[in-house]
Amino acid sequence: MARASDNALADAIRFLAIDAITRAGEGHQGVPLGMADIATALYTRHLRFDAGDPAWPDRDRVVLSNGHGSMLLYALLHLTGVERMGIEQVSSFRDFGSRCEGHPERDVASGIEVTTGPLGQGIANAMGMAVAEAWLNARYGDAVCNHHTYAFVGDGCLQEGVGQEMISLAGHLRLGKLVLLWDDNRITDDGSTELSISEDVAQRCRVAGWHVVEVDGHDIEAVSEAIAQAKADARPSLLACRTVIARGIARLQGQRGGHSGRLFPEDAQAARDLLDWPHAPFEVPAPVLAAWREAGARHRGERAAWRQRVDALPVERRAEFDRLVSGGLPDGWRDVLARYKRDAPVREPLASGIFISGEINDALVDVLPERLVGCADLEAPTNHKRRLAAFTAADRTGAYIHCGVREHVMGAMANGMAAHGGVVPLAVTYLAFSDYERPAMRMAALMGLPVRFVFSHDSIGIGKNGPTHQPVEILASLRAMPGMLVLRPADAVEAAECWEIALAHRNGPSTLVFARQALPHVRRFHTDANLSARGAYVLQEAAGGERQVTLLATGSEVALALAARELLQAGGTPTAVVSMPSWELFEAQGPDYRAAVLGAPGGVRVACEAAVRFGWDRWIGERGGFVGMKGFGASGPADVLYRHFGITAEAIAGEATRLLAPRH
Amino acid sequence: MARASDNALADAIRFLAIDAITRAGEGHQGVPLGMADIATALYTRHLRFDAGDPAWPDRDRVVLSNGHGSMLLYALLHLTGVERMGIEQVSSFRDFGSRCEGHPERDVASGIEVTTGPLGQGIANAMGMAVAEAWLNARYGDAVCNHHTYAFVGDGCLQEGVGQEMISLAGHLRLGKLVLLWDDNRITDDGSTELSISEDVAQRCRVAGWHVVEVDGHDIEAVSEAIAQAKADARPSLLACRTVIARGIARLQGQRGGHSGRLFPEDAQAARDLLDWPHAPFEVPAPVLAAWREAGARHRGERAAWRQRVDALPVERRAEFDRLVSGGLPDGWRDVLARYKRDAPVREPLASGIFISGEINDALVDVLPERLVGCADLEAPTNHKRRLAAFTAADRTGAYIHCGVREHVMGAMANGMAAHGGVVPLAVTYLAFSDYERPAMRMAALMGLPVRFVFSHDSIGIGKNGPTHQPVEILASLRAMPGMLVLRPADAVEAAECWEIALAHRNGPSTLVFARQALPHVRRFHTDANLSARGAYVLQEAAGGERQVTLLATGSEVALALAARELLQAGGTPTAVVSMPSWELFEAQGPDYRAAVLGAPGGVRVACEAAVRFGWDRWIGERGGFVGMKGFGASGPADVLYRHFGITAEAIAGEATRLLAPRH
Repeated sequence: MARASDNALADAIRFLAIDAITRAGEGHQGVPLGMADIATALYTRHLRFDAGDPAWPDRDRVVLSNGHGSMLLYALLHLTGVERMGIEQVSSFRDFGSRCEGHPERDVASGIEVTTGPLGQGIANAMGMAVAEAWLNARYGDAVCNHHTYAFVGDGCLQEGVGQEMISLAGHLRLGKLVLLWDDNRITDDGSTELSISEDVAQRCRVAGWHVVEVDGHDIEAVSEAIAQAKADARPSLLACRTVIARGIARLQGQRGGHSGRLFPEDAQAARDLLDWPHAPFEVPAPVLAAWREAGARHRGERAAWRQRVDALPVERRAEFDRLVSGGLPDGWRDVLARYKRDAPVREPLASGIFISGEINDALVDVLPERLVGCADLEAPTNHKRRLAAFTAADRTGAYIHCGVREHVMGAMANGMAAHGGVVPLAVTYLAFSDYERPAMRMAALMGLPVRFVFSHDSIGIGKNGPTHQPVEILASLRAMPGMLVLRPADAVEAAECWEIALAHRNGPSTLVFARQALPHVRRFHTDANLSARGAYVLQEAAGGERQVTLLATGSEVALALAARELLQAGGTPTAVVSMPSWELFEAQGPDYRAAVLGAPGGVRVACEAAVRFGWDRWIGERGGFVGMKGFGASGPADVLYRHFGITAEAIAGEATRLLAPRH
Repeated sequence: MARASDNALADAIRFLAIDAITRAGEGHQGVPLGMADIATALYTRHLRFDAGDPAWPDRDRVVLSNGHGSMLLYALLHLTGVERMGIEQVSSFRDFGSRCEGHPERDVASGIEVTTGPLGQGIANAMGMAVAEAWLNARYGDAVCNHHTYAFVGDGCLQEGVGQEMISLAGHLRLGKLVLLWDDNRITDDGSTELSISEDVAQRCRVAGWHVVEVDGHDIEAVSEAIAQAKADARPSLLACRTVIARGIARLQGQRGGHSGRLFPEDAQAARDLLDWPHAPFEVPAPVLAAWREAGARHRGERAAWRQRVDALPVERRAEFDRLVSGGLPDGWRDVLARYKRDAPVREPLASGIFISGEINDALVDVLPERLVGCADLEAPTNHKRRLAAFTAADRTGAYIHCGVREHVMGAMANGMAAHGGVVPLAVTYLAFSDYERPAMRMAALMGLPVRFVFSHDSIGIGKNGPTHQPVEILASLRAMPGMLVLRPADAVEAAECWEIALAHRNGPSTLVFARQALPHVRRFHTDANLSARGAYVLQEAAGGERQVTLLATGSEVALALAARELLQAGGTPTAVVSMPSWELFEAQGPDYRAAVLGAPGGVRVACEAAVRFGWDRWIGERGGFVGMKGFGASGPADVLYRHFGITAEAIAGEATRLLAPRH
């Protein structure tokens, strides 16, 4: 059997893409046809991976940041021999149920590292992977962790703000094992890139401290040489690969329509004629397939050797490494939180919500060293660095990343860190700025990644900085997001419980929301049970008769509900207070528990939250009472604002009284 | 009276800031103390403005993008003599009710062009202002519109992704009248900028096609000369002003604490000693105040001359200009929509939602030429360019801006365009990408700016592109935002009505959400009244008896509700269908109307929307039925997905039947 040429290997990618996209009736051929040669150079000569074990912890990572070009990745996974990417998957591209979905969706067993599609996210994920690798490398050495992260990237990813943030921060951190393969095809959906960009992208990256190689993206030898240079350089590398979009489809190549213009069977046939590819649709000739399978197995021996090196680690180090890679939690981690919870209810003076979270963070440093904290230039007011050293270009052992004023890449790199595994990322900023991070939070939710998004300054309680910095709608917007666990603790005890919940929650992201202002103790009794884990619970039951009123509150407003209860009880109205740190967890409880917490169907319910009502009708009913915000906040001292907006114990009691009165 | 020195003018800014921040007990002195000299150069020698008429349409615009440094702006407005910025405002800085709020809040009558605080927004707003100016200049000439836009900017704004997008796009568009005054103080909240950035920012801007001048930010002459150079250059200009943060406070200047470390009376006194400023707090010596007031009045004559030039325009041009500047709508604009609405219900084949919006856009071009459409590299699939030429570096008459893959700056520049006035901005992309734009949308809502955010691809109806591109939670997240009017029309008739509502809605932003898939005709009867304007209305009443079931739906799901009604009516259940294009408008109706639409309290209500339930309990009650999404979508053909997720007429009818059954 004659050895297949490199060009034939690349064309095998092209024709799988052409056939799959033609059959599906839609897709984006521009990327797989334009980047087939680049991918061939990477996968056959450099990429450290084993198609037999796509989850090998020390594999090179590959991100398809231009996720619309998904057929490039599917073709590579199929050709190299990933079992779950058989031809039946490729030939059902974009059908419901196919693993070859419109955009790649994270499935490590199939070789898909992250879900991509919204542009810019992927390269920021890749950066996070490189950070995780660097930290693990510093901790365990080259023998255990030493791999590269590659990302295929198009013009769009580099135009997006999150991509620009990534370029700036990755250059600053000198993530030398990060390599971007840029599909420099000068075409976007609208047409020529000249419509929307004039800058020299390569030069922009050089300014940010990147190593840039400009290369013909259809010259496999040259690309391979460029990758070798990238691997040898201590800076992150951009390979600016000049390509022709949709190369191989004469009617479309180099054109705007090459991006995603519909392919017809005639196009597929014309490409076969042009590229001398006489094979049937979805048929890969044996020598070509053999060469690809060989590429997929090149590192099988290295993988075995790596396992031996890991096994040879001292017992404790090996156990720790295995734990980190599996995402497991160590013995004793809950004890740290239990201790904090036990001591918290009596301490004075009261601490601010975010300070409490910072203290918990401090307490966890020794038991969970793998937690890497990123923060967007708010170290002092968010208080999560105190016991951590900085992760820098010069020192990879630090666990605190100064992200600069770049919330979006902070969140997206946290996703990449979680996707990489071995580290537990936290991303910290003010809640008002979560909107900047939100596209990344959505991706974490969609992928089910265990990222902990931590926010401070969660309401008008921040006071004088005014409405730009006062979230009022953001709790609702995060609660609306599927797969996002939102936690808003009321005091230090609930904070410890919520941190326990968040750390134990491993199949999706958590959002932890803290007040800037001091949180009074509301949990004045001790129980070992994690009451927050049921989402809502009766903090104080009605007294002196059957419950007539149920007050529901979260976070800093629970104290107001307790005060309102005093007023109502004093007036002879048996009133219960429900603390509700997490709607999602409460929603997941059985109907009996929920009914017991919410009170009898006819009873009066009033919710209080320093935020908008939106969503609360779920718990209070459409006729329930609500004390909170009706619009944006204002600039002034926090106590003045609470009074101005009518968020007071008196208002809560008044609302309950109004609803108790017989209706006319 | 001796003429005050420039240094004294700058120090007047410094001491107003020091006194106000010391009194308030918090604030950010870094910016006003560091940029006082730069501001003095700008305001006394270059800025075209009249403190007697802060709203003069042809004034230079000034944006404080580093909005935390708000005292810089308040001091300037007070010193130059803006009436609404009397000393009582400055001396109540950060008190509740003061116009000198923690961060500047848009109030043109007081000289505050835009609300700022979340970093990066301001410079993107400034870019939008420069676009508006360029378009108006091209239409009316230098005599009527010819002014600059300046923005004060700190490191944070330039680190943010939206700032980077702005640098790239403004350079591409060669917005020569845009000048950034960069407070290059090498300090952010975390400390030295070396913690988070290594790149040469000036060089990064040069790469993007900017004119950069590096200058000592405390040398008023040099800054003035640099501004003169900037005004003479055809490119956008960055003045990289090397400054010392908090200059004047010996204990803090040049330090991390200079940013916002608390100021005490001793600091204020020490500064007085250091800078030889023997005046009492909030006292501005007469010669200094006189010089500032003179600066505030320098262009009074030019303003009068400008008014004469405008008055001398041909009648029609003058009327149009006045209309544009006032934000008014012309005679006849509603007729265009009425015509579309009348013709729409019968046309075949059916058009996709976004295609319908594109057609309406086309129809409005002649009557509303001031509508400028920005789109983030989705021209073809969103269909809003067809009759518009591109706005480019070479041609400012075009009304379509190719924003590149940069949603965030698209939204933020639209805000700036609306804030500038004279143009009516639209920002167009897919709904799934609205999260990228969301921080700007929030600012539009907070400022009450009439920006129209247009989205396509609004649900799983997009099909095979999969869950990354399928919004499920985004409608809820936008409905949760105060001040945001969300409109999701069900067919071409409602689309015309919703466009009418959005264009008439002038004191806040609107979000218009369209399906990618074809929208069947659901409004099969004609009425001149805009039924969508009440937010929800009975599209089809129950027949054959008193209404037992109310089905509520929006957008593409209204057709499903109508089909479900057929099933229920056939089974003998009198069923009404309510179309609900806008929750906010419905919420604003009186209780009687709402009750009439929603049906009797005991009646069964079922809502259907291809999105999550979150928020719907407001309209269906906590026991209401809901047919929609429970989580993220999937990749597959749209019809398969609707069936897979159980969003069908049968499911709606089944849910109603279930709820009609007597409860056990």
